[in-house]
Amino acid sequence: MRNIRLKICYEGTRYQGWQRQKTTGNTIQGKLEDILTKMTGEDIEIHGSGRTDAGVHARAQVANFKSHTTMSEYEIKEYLNQYLPLDIGVTEVKEVSPRFHSRLNVIGKRYIYRVWNSSEHNVFERKYMYPFLGELDFEQMNLAAEQLLGTHDFQSFCGKKIKKKSTVRTIKKLEIKRIGPEIRFIYEGDGFLFHMVRILTGTLLEIGTGEMKVEELSGILESRLREKAGRTAPACGLILDEVFYD
Amino acid sequence: MRNIRLKICYEGTRYQGWQRQKTTGNTIQGKLEDILTKMTGEDIEIHGSGRTDAGVHARAQVANFKSHTTMSEYEIKEYLNQYLPLDIGVTEVKEVSPRFHSRLNVIGKRYIYRVWNSSEHNVFERKYMYPFLGELDFEQMNLAAEQLLGTHDFQSFCGKKIKKKSTVRTIKKLEIKRIGPEIRFIYEGDGFLFHMVRILTGTLLEIGTGEMKVEELSGILESRLREKAGRTAPACGLILDEVFYD
Repeated sequence: MRNIRLKICYEGTRYQGWQRQKTTGNTIQGKLEDILTKMTGEDIEIHGSGRTDAGVHARAQVANFKSHTTMSEYEIKEYLNQYLPLDIGVTEVKEVSPRFHSRLNVIGKRYIYRVWNSSEHNVFERKYMYPFLGELDFEQMNLAAEQLLGTHDFQSFCGKKIKKKSTVRTIKKLEIKRIGPEIRFIYEGDGFLFHMVRILTGTLLEIGTGEMKVEELSGILESRLREKAGRTAPACGLILDEVFYD
Repeated sequence: MRNIRLKICYEGTRYQGWQRQKTTGNTIQGKLEDILTKMTGEDIEIHGSGRTDAGVHARAQVANFKSHTTMSEYEIKEYLNQYLPLDIGVTEVKEVSPRFHSRLNVIGKRYIYRVWNSSEHNVFERKYMYPFLGELDFEQMNLAAEQLLGTHDFQSFCGKKIKKKSTVRTIKKLEIKRIGPEIRFIYEGDGFLFHMVRILTGTLLEIGTGEMKVEELSGILESRLREKAGRTAPACGLILDEVFYD
């Protein structure tokens, strides 16, 4: 049995997220599995590095699947790109060790959240940005980012109650870059909870506008209450940029 | 009466082109006129530098309109961007001399045609490129580009029969750039006939694949017959990049 690793990019706009759903569902995983099942004649199940929500994009999602196919890496890539819709693309196909698992072996991820902070329209990249008006105080946002760095219990920044598993995560990098009217939030960490990047971004934006104060952050973290943190920033601004392995 | 000049960018995908149509019609000119008419309470008519076809994009279309409005340039721009859909944007508003006319004063235009020459998908820019497989001979395409440069009767490269007006145009620049898997055709000239850039690009691509020979070009030009030239490349790859004035 061969173990095949894929790198995949997609514009999430049209999809109900990464994960295949039993009921109706236009999902990235579903699209890939359907094509691979046709290609191999086997019942293919792929494992992604993690889910992305409906509307979230990816530059380099990673997934793997097991198959007896005799096709070369190149042939698999060509086949997939031939049958995939144009808003999903396979950028790399590689046969890997049988022990590799896209989700279990992840050691970190980078997400980028893009905000368009101008009343002018960004016509050509509008699908990849959250248009947000209002002046932002970068000093305050950077102070907040510094506090969020490191290891914390992020339950307050998680979109659902988690009881059995740990909600402790480590953010290794949280950079806020201004590129003209665009603000780019770059997050690197060992893992991110459900909606975590979007809630962190929503909270940083509220700190930027002054709706929320940096001083409130430690209380928000301690409370472990979702309602204490800021709003969930919309999916369209988020992109899974890279998944890290050993 | 003030004369107001606009610079406009748009993704043409959703539109039936620039020009307002009497019957149903989702057009860029129509959108702009409707908003300006509401804004001023006057019956505003705008003049574009020229039409763009259904599906063609613009980075910097130019248009002007006359109005008694007392609003500042800044206020007009903000108003327009507030009410325009996100796939149309106004990047500049400027009051100009009463004698300025967006179409009559044009001295040249630059169009860019983008081709995506790879079986890999360009997920994030796919709306702005024509995906074209097959190997291309750049030497032959460049030889052809050289021959097309300068002043010619381009009737063969025009999508409709023109009887009364001249079909002589001057191409001042025709550059073919390879940027990884992307091929960019850059056209500058004093003016372009209906579908001219798309037919030129289609013809250059046929020369690139070997379907057509460079040696046929002078015969094609002389014939003044549309059917002698290559196919019309699709609208999605074309962008009006700049309009030049004195």
